[in-house]
Amino acid sequence: MSHDPNCIFCKIVAGQIPSKKVFEDEDVLAFHDINPWAPVHLLVIPKRHIASMADVTDAEAALLGKMVALGPKLMKDLGVTNGFRHVINTGPDGGQEVYHLHLHVMGGPRPWLKG
Amino acid sequence: MSHDPNCIFCKIVAGQIPSKKVFEDEDVLAFHDINPWAPVHLLVIPKRHIASMADVTDAEAALLGKMVALGPKLMKDLGVTNGFRHVINTGPDGGQEVYHLHLHVMGGPRPWLKG
Repeated sequence: MSHDPNCIFCKIVAGQIPSKKVFEDEDVLAFHDINPWAPVHLLVIPKRHIASMADVTDAEAALLGKMVALGPKLMKDLGVTNGFRHVINTGPDGGQEVYHLHLHVMGGPRPWLKG
Repeated sequence: MSHDPNCIFCKIVAGQIPSKKVFEDEDVLAFHDINPWAPVHLLVIPKRHIASMADVTDAEAALLGKMVALGPKLMKDLGVTNGFRHVINTGPDGGQEVYHLHLHVMGGPRPWLKG
């Protein structure tokens, strides 16, 4: 599995940095964002190092589908009943901060909405 | 194919309302948002009527993966080189406005970033 020793999310996958996990399987890890923008703010990441959506091909479509479809299940498990938002930031104009692909899933009342 | 005669996006799929299409196959349609938040703002929708991510199950994972993986390809085709953002809004707290599942893919300089 591709792993970048300097990547904070690879370190979380490896257990070298602790995280508040809510889901894990062989491909994917989901955990609470340490700097939440919403009452429930999860990050869903692939375990292998993919820098960003700009590096994704059709070969990653199944992985992405699994990550995105996980969101509603986790929101339900965590008691979010009135809506949530999926966000993936890519590159400088996308506001990407960590260059290990991650999906934000944010639930609850919405201070984090645009405009 | 599931179709809701009162749904604006089903009408776009059926060609009853015009749209500026950028991609279409048997499952998915992508077109320019008529009210863009960013220099390039696409909507990617499933052709069949799925109200929101709250209605998605694992059966839709492949469809979602296809929709999400299409984003980077379309951004590249449209000359977006410095980043983009994927967003799916679900339910009232998610700010969902049209109840036919849709993925926003927004590229270019970022007036639309959070705070």
